Amino acid sequence: MLVAYTIQEVRDWRKSHKHADAVLGFVPTMGALHAGHGALIERARRECDLVVVSIFVNPIQFNQLEDYQRYPRTLEADLAFCDQRGVDLVFAPSEQEMYPEPLDTYVEVQRLTTHLCGAFRPGHFRGVATVVTKLFNIVQPDRAYFGEKDAQQLAVIQRMVRDLNFPIEIVPVATVREPDGLAMSSRNQYLTPEERAIAPILYQGLQAALELARSGERSAKALVARARQVIEQEPAVRIEYLEVVDAQHMQPVEHIMAPVRVAVAAWLGKARLIDNVFFDPAEKSGPES
Amino acid sequence: MLVAYTIQEVRDWRKSHKHADAVLGFVPTMGALHAGHGALIERARRECDLVVVSIFVNPIQFNQLEDYQRYPRTLEADLAFCDQRGVDLVFAPSEQEMYPEPLDTYVEVQRLTTHLCGAFRPGHFRGVATVVTKLFNIVQPDRAYFGEKDAQQLAVIQRMVRDLNFPIEIVPVATVREPDGLAMSSRNQYLTPEERAIAPILYQGLQAALELARSGERSAKALVARARQVIEQEPAVRIEYLEVVDAQHMQPVEHIMAPVRVAVAAWLGKARLIDNVFFDPAEKSGPES
Repeated sequence: MLVAYTIQEVRDWRKSHKHADAVLGFVPTMGALHAGHGALIERARRECDLVVVSIFVNPIQFNQLEDYQRYPRTLEADLAFCDQRGVDLVFAPSEQEMYPEPLDTYVEVQRLTTHLCGAFRPGHFRGVATVVTKLFNIVQPDRAYFGEKDAQQLAVIQRMVRDLNFPIEIVPVATVREPDGLAMSSRNQYLTPEERAIAPILYQGLQAALELARSGERSAKALVARARQVIEQEPAVRIEYLEVVDAQHMQPVEHIMAPVRVAVAAWLGKARLIDNVFFDPAEKSGPES
Repeated sequence: MLVAYTIQEVRDWRKSHKHADAVLGFVPTMGALHAGHGALIERARRECDLVVVSIFVNPIQFNQLEDYQRYPRTLEADLAFCDQRGVDLVFAPSEQEMYPEPLDTYVEVQRLTTHLCGAFRPGHFRGVATVVTKLFNIVQPDRAYFGEKDAQQLAVIQRMVRDLNFPIEIVPVATVREPDGLAMSSRNQYLTPEERAIAPILYQGLQAALELARSGERSAKALVARARQVIEQEPAVRIEYLEVVDAQHMQPVEHIMAPVRVAVAAWLGKARLIDNVFFDPAEKSGPES
């Protein structure tokens, strides 16, 4: 496995691996790799000839300096993690390498960013879309893998790729969960043992809403009320948002007629956790998958 | 010469021409091709293995519907023009092909767009940066050729490529002029014969400012006054802006200490004309080139 710290190293490597038919799969990450990233990497490894992982804690997508500064950085463990999974190249640039001077250029995705995290983290998705564009232009992948845990990010990147005609297929990968249902996240390590025990309540709330939807309920308000009822059993959890949005444009819906996501962000101590479930009203009701 | 009307045709052609060492040169245009475009194409033909020209009147960079509607469209003549110059592929998409649905994603270049045309044509450079990003992602060139007549556009694209790490070299090409000095432009055809006779006064004004700079003057105000003095001899010309800006960031300067452009936009009847000259204070004074 090669580790590249500069853009030029990636370009040189890419040039020497540009066979006409070799498919390159790319997994952009901020490091602190866990089983969720593992699922992205393993999927890319199965589907592609070459696999590139980037590890870069991107300052321009943090809207709080404190959050940026304390974000976990575990490069050595991350490199071993990638090596074990057969990654071909890890790109781990410095901030100076990615932003040698203040940017004048940004990629903005409108509409899809007006709700959920977009409403509470101003500038976040502009930072995400911009750094992903930079990484796409550096790595030049054929496919890129994004987790459904960050559903709004996934929708934003899918939209950006379609609007700007990037020659890249975006592959969504299902959220990986702890045995008790908590979605894997690098930020879970901010939880105290007490908070960690409480945290699965988020997914339980979402599951309750999903069951209600599967039983035929189509009112978004009713689903939100159901999820709230469950989550608010734990007074330590402060809900930031809890919304039903259409799965493509991330806009709130009242009545569910097309695929949606029920999405939640909540604070538990110093950790801000997000999670979501997908529901397609056209799906056949039956045993939960 | 192949003419492609769809994105898929370009992608298929590109795939079948992806030799590791073949250099692809790209000339994006809005058609109504003239000798200025000819210089871009001929330069690309000399320097590259493959040459692609795009012809697309991009609606999102026009800030006046009328200007968009009356913009000259001469596809048949343009195709012959390209064919004569040995172009390999012309990409001439419809508006529907480029914008099948309203865009949610835009590329914004800040700072460089606050003055000159950016100040008078709100949204123009956002439309330019966005369509050029789309075209870059469709054509995937190694080099792209832009005329210095549109100096701010050139600076914006250079900045965008640097900020977003496009793997593309931007090649500036000197302005091509009529024998009397008027910069070639598709919009020159809006001029009546009387206006056409007057139009070279713009370049004469810029040349007068340039001579003053070469004689040692470093005050931007003095250069602007000199150019104005010349241009205002023709009362039919309405100056929109006349500014001295630094050549890289397009910001106004007072005292010239680094390379600048003296840039003008002016209305003559129904035509809005732009032009500019470059001056580097480090250049040796001597006979004009």
